[in-house]
Amino acid sequence: MKALVYRTSDKGSGKPSWEDQPRPAVQHPEDAIVRMTTTTICGTDLHILKGDLPAVTDGRILGHEGIGIVEETGAGVTGFKRGDKVILSCVTACMKCDFCRKGMLSHCRNGGWILGNLIDGTQAEYVRIPYADGSLYHFPEGADEEAMVMLSDALPTGFECGVLNGDVKPGDSVAIVGAGPVGIAILLTAQFYSPAAIYVIDLDDNRLAIAKKYGATTTINSSDGKAAETIMQLTGGEGVDVAIEAVGIPATFDICQNIVGAGGRLANVGVHGAPVALQLEKLWDRNIALTTRLVDTVTLPMLLKVVQSGKVEPAKLITHRFAMADILKAYETFGNAAKEHALKVVLTNK
Amino acid sequence: MKALVYRTSDKGSGKPSWEDQPRPAVQHPEDAIVRMTTTTICGTDLHILKGDLPAVTDGRILGHEGIGIVEETGAGVTGFKRGDKVILSCVTACMKCDFCRKGMLSHCRNGGWILGNLIDGTQAEYVRIPYADGSLYHFPEGADEEAMVMLSDALPTGFECGVLNGDVKPGDSVAIVGAGPVGIAILLTAQFYSPAAIYVIDLDDNRLAIAKKYGATTTINSSDGKAAETIMQLTGGEGVDVAIEAVGIPATFDICQNIVGAGGRLANVGVHGAPVALQLEKLWDRNIALTTRLVDTVTLPMLLKVVQSGKVEPAKLITHRFAMADILKAYETFGNAAKEHALKVVLTNK
Amino acid sequence: MKALVYRTSDKGSGKPSWEDQPRPAVQHPEDAIVRMTTTTICGTDLHILKGDLPAVTDGRILGHEGIGIVEETGAGVTGFKRGDKVILSCVTACMKCDFCRKGMLSHCRNGGWILGNLIDGTQAEYVRIPYADGSLYHFPEGADEEAMVMLSDALPTGFECGVLNGDVKPGDSVAIVGAGPVGIAILLTAQFYSPAAIYVIDLDDNRLAIAKKYGATTTINSSDGKAAETIMQLTGGEGVDVAIEAVGIPATFDICQNIVGAGGRLANVGVHGAPVALQLEKLWDRNIALTTRLVDTVTLPMLLKVVQSGKVEPAKLITHRFAMADILKAYETFGNAAKEHALKVVLTNK
Amino acid sequence: MKALVYRTSDKGSGKPSWEDQPRPAVQHPEDAIVRMTTTTICGTDLHILKGDLPAVTDGRILGHEGIGIVEETGAGVTGFKRGDKVILSCVTACMKCDFCRKGMLSHCRNGGWILGNLIDGTQAEYVRIPYADGSLYHFPEGADEEAMVMLSDALPTGFECGVLNGDVKPGDSVAIVGAGPVGIAILLTAQFYSPAAIYVIDLDDNRLAIAKKYGATTTINSSDGKAAETIMQLTGGEGVDVAIEAVGIPATFDICQNIVGAGGRLANVGVHGAPVALQLEKLWDRNIALTTRLVDTVTLPMLLKVVQSGKVEPAKLITHRFAMADILKAYETFGNAAKEHALKVVLTNK
Repeated sequence: MKALVYRTSDKGSGKPSWEDQPRPAVQHPEDAIVRMTTTTICGTDLHILKGDLPAVTDGRILGHEGIGIVEETGAGVTGFKRGDKVILSCVTACMKCDFCRKGMLSHCRNGGWILGNLIDGTQAEYVRIPYADGSLYHFPEGADEEAMVMLSDALPTGFECGVLNGDVKPGDSVAIVGAGPVGIAILLTAQFYSPAAIYVIDLDDNRLAIAKKYGATTTINSSDGKAAETIMQLTGGEGVDVAIEAVGIPATFDICQNIVGAGGRLANVGVHGAPVALQLEKLWDRNIALTTRLVDTVTLPMLLKVVQSGKVEPAKLITHRFAMADILKAYETFGNAAKEHALKVVLTNK
Repeated sequence: MKALVYRTSDKGSGKPSWEDQPRPAVQHPEDAIVRMTTTTICGTDLHILKGDLPAVTDGRILGHEGIGIVEETGAGVTGFKRGDKVILSCVTACMKCDFCRKGMLSHCRNGGWILGNLIDGTQAEYVRIPYADGSLYHFPEGADEEAMVMLSDALPTGFECGVLNGDVKPGDSVAIVGAGPVGIAILLTAQFYSPAAIYVIDLDDNRLAIAKKYGATTTINSSDGKAAETIMQLTGGEGVDVAIEAVGIPATFDICQNIVGAGGRLANVGVHGAPVALQLEKLWDRNIALTTRLVDTVTLPMLLKVVQSGKVEPAKLITHRFAMADILKAYETFGNAAKEHALKVVLTNK
Repeated sequence: MKALVYRTSDKGSGKPSWEDQPRPAVQHPEDAIVRMTTTTICGTDLHILKGDLPAVTDGRILGHEGIGIVEETGAGVTGFKRGDKVILSCVTACMKCDFCRKGMLSHCRNGGWILGNLIDGTQAEYVRIPYADGSLYHFPEGADEEAMVMLSDALPTGFECGVLNGDVKPGDSVAIVGAGPVGIAILLTAQFYSPAAIYVIDLDDNRLAIAKKYGATTTINSSDGKAAETIMQLTGGEGVDVAIEAVGIPATFDICQNIVGAGGRLANVGVHGAPVALQLEKLWDRNIALTTRLVDTVTLPMLLKVVQSGKVEPAKLITHRFAMADILKAYETFGNAAKEHALKVVLTNK
Repeated sequence: MKALVYRTSDKGSGKPSWEDQPRPAVQHPEDAIVRMTTTTICGTDLHILKGDLPAVTDGRILGHEGIGIVEETGAGVTGFKRGDKVILSCVTACMKCDFCRKGMLSHCRNGGWILGNLIDGTQAEYVRIPYADGSLYHFPEGADEEAMVMLSDALPTGFECGVLNGDVKPGDSVAIVGAGPVGIAILLTAQFYSPAAIYVIDLDDNRLAIAKKYGATTTINSSDGKAAETIMQLTGGEGVDVAIEAVGIPATFDICQNIVGAGGRLANVGVHGAPVALQLEKLWDRNIALTTRLVDTVTLPMLLKVVQSGKVEPAKLITHRFAMADILKAYETFGNAAKEHALKVVLTNK
């Protein structure tokens, strides 16, 4: 079969390669083999190509999102059978370990985020899914594949790490720092709880325009270095109820810690590569909560119901569409997201 | 009347002075004047003497804890009358502003922690308590004054900022970094929730011995710089469910961030004077919550019930007793806490 | 001044009378006198007229909702002054007692629901509001009086007793039994949380049409006695996540207990005059929660923010408008709500 | 092998029979066969013998609690292997269905409470456990079997249905109606949260004496019909924060609904066979929550940690011990619990 393989160079980074690879087979009784019909590229895949995730080694098939058809199941799989159309979670969950039992599927002792990371992933014609009963979800009849593929990772990441951890409530003021795919997923799902104000902050006016269109009440271009100041003025010096970090660098974290109001929540969603200077000398008496989270996708069934009810249209995140065979072109587009005005790119194989 | 007054020197710091001061009078309809019978000295008072809180100015009467008898009330006070014996909260609360309505009395728009800070305090024969209905509590008949004075600040601080924010649950593993009065208050109140293990960490073996006596399951002297390592070994590499910072310096915060397990809580209680380096590059995917809090004393009524039921003996925190007239000696003892083996010192005026 | 007075007859019931009454004056330091500009009639007022609330005695001025202008304040009132435009809460709250401190303002030791019940109410040119600081809210500049008067009682009742107690969550299925003013208030505020399905059940097709217009996904006329059966079919035999009782009789309660799914919530909002037969033999193992609540109006500030943000339009509840002098006509209309197609009637005095 | 079999008579009820039965074998990949070393008899088993649970048919091996050694596992079992010593949960959980994912294992689509009910149970030399990975727990090395067998059902039932659903908090007043094994399990586990007062109510002075010994602050014999009145006097007319029903008849439920205070919780634990008259005309405005629950045993790992830490000694529940071969004698003793002063009886097979 054909698959998108990570090939490392001498310099520590790597590049995507569309190659022939052996078709995966059931290895354990709880495995399923899925034929992929739709997949997508995640910002994390670009990080891998830059060499930021050294655990990903040469030859790995990338990708951890997708829709497909079950091709084969191990003897221990009881919830799925050949021919079932499925949504793949980016998280592999045994559902039996202590973390799975607590709903922390991301920290599953036997899985977690391993797809396209420690085992071969979904940017391929076929993929092996361990613990299929815990990691696959039935695709609702008649649903839209483009909407559903957003449930693999993008929408639950925004919702769980940003909106739920930030405890967004009706009437709240919410600031989202970063308007990339995850920031927009936060924006869409924050509206489930009817906040009164949603401030979206980014350096890119095109992304801010999208944010405005999708529900931001105010957008702020932070290139002048005054985003925090602006938010404090807009909130009468009080700061926001919820500040959500969706980039992953000290500068955007700083905006968040400077605007979170007394009693507020700071939900970190971004993937950080370096420490940040937490201003505890200012925050120790502010009664705030700062949270971190790797997406658990435990809300996937809830999100599926909300999507099916029409209250949110996750396909809004999709800006570009490709055939899976053109995935290298898709990587190029997604790698130049700002220039290409790209949020999520979708790949189909039909 | 006599009072303990903060007198600044040229160097920015100051010293305590026991002086004659005018007796306070009702200024607003919601004020009460209380004759003090018991008070105590808080670590924060020492910080003031060192010049760490510049908002406290020369001539200020210190103290924000105590038991007393209501001497006089303004026309708007409905819950208390002359002769009532009362517990004073360290927090002045109007009970009407938005923060008070949310239970964040510490951030009361008209009060908060102002006693012995922005207005004259309780280390005096008399004190004026603004918003008396929100800031005083009836002293239970027959109760022990030494136990009750711990409800002004020490016990609620440990309980609210440490135990409640840390969400201590039955069976949890809890680490308390710092075994001073606040650390011991955390230790006593954490046991309300039956954790399975309580690790207490400090540099002072005497304090660790007290911790052991009062419920710590393991004590660790961190002077070898290996406290975090030791905790990780003791927890099989998992880390603790709850790490509570009760000192207020980067080194103790670091222990906490290095031992908090996946899905755990890090409750900051210490008063910090400098930023800390938060290792977001390690913590972003650990599903933790880090909290800060200035004590609200909203749990004072709950704590009072627990104390009255005999489930906790807060007087255990008291190591030294003085007459109020000997308060300068008490400051000296408390200022040399390690040498004097002091936790809380109590002053009475009867 | 003119006021709507409850006059009892021999039979135990009574009738409304528009009479001259003495203008109220400040009696306690925490009182305010408010000149009413807008008020409304509540279903509870009709209950009083029927003699269902024997605590309400002959001569009582009715009404517990409204907007007005502060005319005079007692010495203890600090948050409001003459000339301030205010929203009146139906609940009088001292903010100091144990219940107020827990957010259970409805059970305030010194207040609770007393307006137009145990003390004179708001269907008058002037009203005395005890504990004004706890019971009044500033009217936002430029806001719509018709929207704001719904915050006195109708909207918080639906939201607190129905939606919050029912713990409505994104993707949930919700059934609202009763489409009167409170049922519609539940319908509007349930949508703050993006449920996937809202079933509204009533006997009156006109009210069901309104429900449909305002967000019900399905409406069911229960006059055939098969509402529960229908809901069970629509939910594939699972029942709903949240069943909300908004009538107050055994028949409607029965629908709720027959449709609440395993793990679901049954929020009672209706005022009941008789016991109900709770089918514990069927429900004991269904992991449900059944709640009751008298509105606390603690969410008034939150609701105000949501209304101001445009996420809900409470004026939708208003079907009829009268001058205050025509209040007897308004009572007639509201008393024949079904025939008159009435939900809320509004009275203005300008 | 030998097993305790339910044999029905003509009259609809039945009797226990100690008989030879075929030894169970693995039927599905997720099954395990466990050799029983310790088991116990539950009140529910007596209900079965009385014919109260018609789903239990002639020939069924009873029992849903126990400790044993894994004898054999299906190909899909990954967490256990032959020779492992295990605690059996009374609940069979697939861990994959929607209810298991919500933590409602009791409502597992593929399991729930089926042991000794719909499939053969644990009062036998061997038992087949479906979904072994979700339904078994590793026995901690060196632990006490008598303590651990209480974790199969008794302790989690008291804790989950009574204490957690009742939301017992430090300083609370708690009333437990019924001092049988479940009532005493509630009493023991309520103390995890340091309530100030625990009232235990029963008709049997012997059981009340045990309750007193195990932590009840007050015991009340309700044979005079005045238990509710007494509680109201003891609580100054306020009622209790938490009322827990642990019998399952209207009379004991009535005590609960008459003593639950405003804002309180009524946790039903008892198995009811008939409806109760819920006094909604008194309770509609009392802001209470009434809960029901079939034990999920999701807290088994937490309870195990608390037991191991020595904070609770569940073996206190055990009053009688028998060899498994003497199980008919054990049934007789347990069937005359009041006369025999029996709480839990334990059966061992070694």
